[in-house]
Amino acid sequence: MQLGLVGLGRMGGNMRERLRAAGHEVVGFDRDPALSDVASLTELAEKLQAPRAVWVMVPAGVTDATIDTLAESLGDGDIVIDGGNSRFSDDAPRAERLATRGIGYLDVGVSGGVWGRQNGYGLMVGGSDEHVARLMPIFSALKPAGEFGFVHAGPVGAGHYAKMVHNGIEYGLMHAYAEGYELLTASELVTDVPGVVKAWRDGTVVQSWLLDLLDRALEADPELTELSGWTEDTGEGRWTVDEGVRLAVPLHVISAALFARFASRQDDSPAMKAVSALRQQFGGHAVHKR
Amino acid sequence: MQLGLVGLGRMGGNMRERLRAAGHEVVGFDRDPALSDVASLTELAEKLQAPRAVWVMVPAGVTDATIDTLAESLGDGDIVIDGGNSRFSDDAPRAERLATRGIGYLDVGVSGGVWGRQNGYGLMVGGSDEHVARLMPIFSALKPAGEFGFVHAGPVGAGHYAKMVHNGIEYGLMHAYAEGYELLTASELVTDVPGVVKAWRDGTVVQSWLLDLLDRALEADPELTELSGWTEDTGEGRWTVDEGVRLAVPLHVISAALFARFASRQDDSPAMKAVSALRQQFGGHAVHKR
Amino acid sequence: MQLGLVGLGRMGGNMRERLRAAGHEVVGFDRDPALSDVASLTELAEKLQAPRAVWVMVPAGVTDATIDTLAESLGDGDIVIDGGNSRFSDDAPRAERLATRGIGYLDVGVSGGVWGRQNGYGLMVGGSDEHVARLMPIFSALKPAGEFGFVHAGPVGAGHYAKMVHNGIEYGLMHAYAEGYELLTASELVTDVPGVVKAWRDGTVVQSWLLDLLDRALEADPELTELSGWTEDTGEGRWTVDEGVRLAVPLHVISAALFARFASRQDDSPAMKAVSALRQQFGGHAVHKR
Amino acid sequence: MQLGLVGLGRMGGNMRERLRAAGHEVVGFDRDPALSDVASLTELAEKLQAPRAVWVMVPAGVTDATIDTLAESLGDGDIVIDGGNSRFSDDAPRAERLATRGIGYLDVGVSGGVWGRQNGYGLMVGGSDEHVARLMPIFSALKPAGEFGFVHAGPVGAGHYAKMVHNGIEYGLMHAYAEGYELLTASELVTDVPGVVKAWRDGTVVQSWLLDLLDRALEADPELTELSGWTEDTGEGRWTVDEGVRLAVPLHVISAALFARFASRQDDSPAMKAVSALRQQFGGHAVHKR
Repeated sequence: MQLGLVGLGRMGGNMRERLRAAGHEVVGFDRDPALSDVASLTELAEKLQAPRAVWVMVPAGVTDATIDTLAESLGDGDIVIDGGNSRFSDDAPRAERLATRGIGYLDVGVSGGVWGRQNGYGLMVGGSDEHVARLMPIFSALKPAGEFGFVHAGPVGAGHYAKMVHNGIEYGLMHAYAEGYELLTASELVTDVPGVVKAWRDGTVVQSWLLDLLDRALEADPELTELSGWTEDTGEGRWTVDEGVRLAVPLHVISAALFARFASRQDDSPAMKAVSALRQQFGGHAVHKR
Repeated sequence: MQLGLVGLGRMGGNMRERLRAAGHEVVGFDRDPALSDVASLTELAEKLQAPRAVWVMVPAGVTDATIDTLAESLGDGDIVIDGGNSRFSDDAPRAERLATRGIGYLDVGVSGGVWGRQNGYGLMVGGSDEHVARLMPIFSALKPAGEFGFVHAGPVGAGHYAKMVHNGIEYGLMHAYAEGYELLTASELVTDVPGVVKAWRDGTVVQSWLLDLLDRALEADPELTELSGWTEDTGEGRWTVDEGVRLAVPLHVISAALFARFASRQDDSPAMKAVSALRQQFGGHAVHKR
Repeated sequence: MQLGLVGLGRMGGNMRERLRAAGHEVVGFDRDPALSDVASLTELAEKLQAPRAVWVMVPAGVTDATIDTLAESLGDGDIVIDGGNSRFSDDAPRAERLATRGIGYLDVGVSGGVWGRQNGYGLMVGGSDEHVARLMPIFSALKPAGEFGFVHAGPVGAGHYAKMVHNGIEYGLMHAYAEGYELLTASELVTDVPGVVKAWRDGTVVQSWLLDLLDRALEADPELTELSGWTEDTGEGRWTVDEGVRLAVPLHVISAALFARFASRQDDSPAMKAVSALRQQFGGHAVHKR
Repeated sequence: MQLGLVGLGRMGGNMRERLRAAGHEVVGFDRDPALSDVASLTELAEKLQAPRAVWVMVPAGVTDATIDTLAESLGDGDIVIDGGNSRFSDDAPRAERLATRGIGYLDVGVSGGVWGRQNGYGLMVGGSDEHVARLMPIFSALKPAGEFGFVHAGPVGAGHYAKMVHNGIEYGLMHAYAEGYELLTASELVTDVPGVVKAWRDGTVVQSWLLDLLDRALEADPELTELSGWTEDTGEGRWTVDEGVRLAVPLHVISAALFARFASRQDDSPAMKAVSALRQQFGGHAVHKR
């Protein structure tokens, strides 16, 4: 089928290729003319036959502005799909704004990163049955072959919600491996840490795709000497903890993984300086001065 | 090759079958005569040609006693392999005791649970190069096909150490999935929780064997209504946290997963009663009486 | 000086008495006529000479509605003080609404609970220097004698912010005592747990007012048998964690204390059922059925 | 009464002064002749009339060696008191060794740090009623005036156990304040962070001696610019977590405080480098290189 695709960066560009390889007709727009098939969102809308479907794959910060501009060129019966990393709570207001013009809306959490083009993308979709049905050919092309990798998770918002939880889990999984890895490196007994990680890839309870990637990283750099421990976070982890707090769901593990990333970016935290100050005060403990 | 195998329970029994299927000659002993190939450890030793190799696969609590009894029937050049869930710190003393009789020792962390017979067992081995080389035909038969699933992790103790860390990571992984699962169930938006879990099995960052098992469990019981949240722990998680404490490795995630299991077994914890008591004292807050 | 006081419940009623004992003229209003000095907010405004100061001490859920109604009877030069448990982010919008009518605004975090009438209330104030100066006679009467117990923490919002952090810390402090208390009760060695708590009240690093209260609770009920561990939370702990997440401040301790309260209210959490399900799947571990 | 006192460092020296001020006769020994009243442990024993009581106040690492040497000069009916930071599990074996010579043993957890000489020391004592009774004059002189500050917590070991838990709680308390302090410093609203801390010292739920000390530290250095966040730990926190693990007591808060100290001493942790490596692998995320 025909699909408009707005945003042709690392993710969008790869998705365009996967869709075209599956026989779909993709009209892509990007601010970078070198990547773009059309000159403007208006031209993109003109190139598509109504009822149109336009997939928006832009950074979360510009999604609303992009969709609002795009909507001016769309009309009754068209559908906008947001596949970016929007916060789930932005979906319902966005759907309502589009609905006033008769435009439908689907939110899609897209997983898979740089591996998606080859392996397929995990898709978590929120929206109405009717809208999901219309986009199924596209979803089928993007998702991995086989029975997994796609879910219609619920009404508008549910797709990004499921993706948010996916990423929250990812924080916890990564940190569990990271803690175990550090303990192996600290052990006086284990002499082949990369070998242990590699061995775990089959026949064990901890085998996973993330573990495969850790092995891959250790193949390239067996002591990770090229990397620093300074680690970014990208929003979904924070939203997950906010949701745990809102819904009274204990998230000891996911929050600990998030907080460890925060701490990795601090050279000298005010909190630990306060601990030092207290130790000095009550115990006369020698403390580190700056 | 020939192998003595002591302990033919769920794990040992399956291993015997996998080894025999690979063409090895296994002489098994179990306290249960219905399972056993021989009547005693003495008879087991007699049935094997020197230099012998005897794999011990018994509960951690009786490993030392079993090995000490077994050693009386073994001699110079024989090897004992402990494939049970021993604490790594028990390995070196055990190896020293056996060495006084000229008996070698390997410690093997075995992963794979009930799935190992079919898929192969992940093996993490500690001991000398010479001893490992002698047992390689057995290890090759037990491990999964392919390049993964086996590591000679270091000297005596390193095998159980790597297995301990494996299990510590497993605690963290399971709890990360568990927290995410609970958040999905708490969400007002996600209407198909089992569907989300199933979708994650391909194309996502969180895909793993444990996730496959969670999907399998939800297929059988979509809301886990048959299960209670009361959850046991089996030692390795505790040892992992102890090692983190000893080696000053922060284990926020793994310890949180362990403590959550402890808490799952408490109806009414003294700690939370103390919190209730304090709230009542300072704020006149209404509290729950028993 | 003259003060209008809206809300004469446990906190407001005690504050009225402390203010009157200090010689101030308090005109109180409460929905309950038995507590109220006047019949309506309108009458309250009439009884006060301009420029008026009216302190609002009502549950957080009705603060905005109360202030909006009250503002209709107030005018240019008057001041509204919110001493309730508002979220700090509500203060600036509220101040802006009042400012359109020339009405000033102060936000005051009030600590001290049921003990405040006798000991004085800890006050954390947000607002302009001018407004704080006008209310200082009231603050001086409410705060404890001595040099502590009052701070002008910053502009509008800072008072409730400081109170929020105070309560977040309180969660952590209470849980630290609670964990230590549980460990004492679990010990095979300590035979006099209440005696240990009582001893800690002087000469130790852990002495505090909260510890005094724990001793008081144990005097009344040495094993806390009358209490359940089911523990409520009241908003500030959640807001504190939300702020840590927003500002990338690691809050391992405060979040753990909050999550432990969430968990105390769950009989059988979905998360722990998922852990049970996974253990059953991979290990054939016996698990608890409902 | 007469007391031998071994170890006249910061703690022991202050205790000697407090005891002498209370009228007791203290014969002190220290390896440093400038501090010592006698030239050797033998001479110390000779100066005391039987039945003797000798208080040992030396670093935990040399306690057993000191007591074993001392015991050679003591005899039937004498008592040794260990007031150092021994691990509780060392007490019973030590008591048994001394008992073979007829020497009694008390373990005493001593709190109060550099403030104890003036304010009195919090004392937590383990041992028999008879031995405690004999030392009561000494305990009474060391403890603070008033009804608190002393407990006979249980049999041998219970004193150090209670002190260990005291210190574990202290880790949690300090970290709760530290997290709150950091959040205040991160806030855009709070302009007077030291003022908030000072205000909390009275009329609030978080008032405590530790908070007094934090205010004292901020008086001297309002932004703690002189201190680094590198923070040591001294054993009791680790032992507390070990006990939580052994006794299945969830210690989310105390362990988090301990792990945060571990992390404060890491510039670049292997765990966070592993997280960086994984992010780079699956997402092509830009990561920090060293």
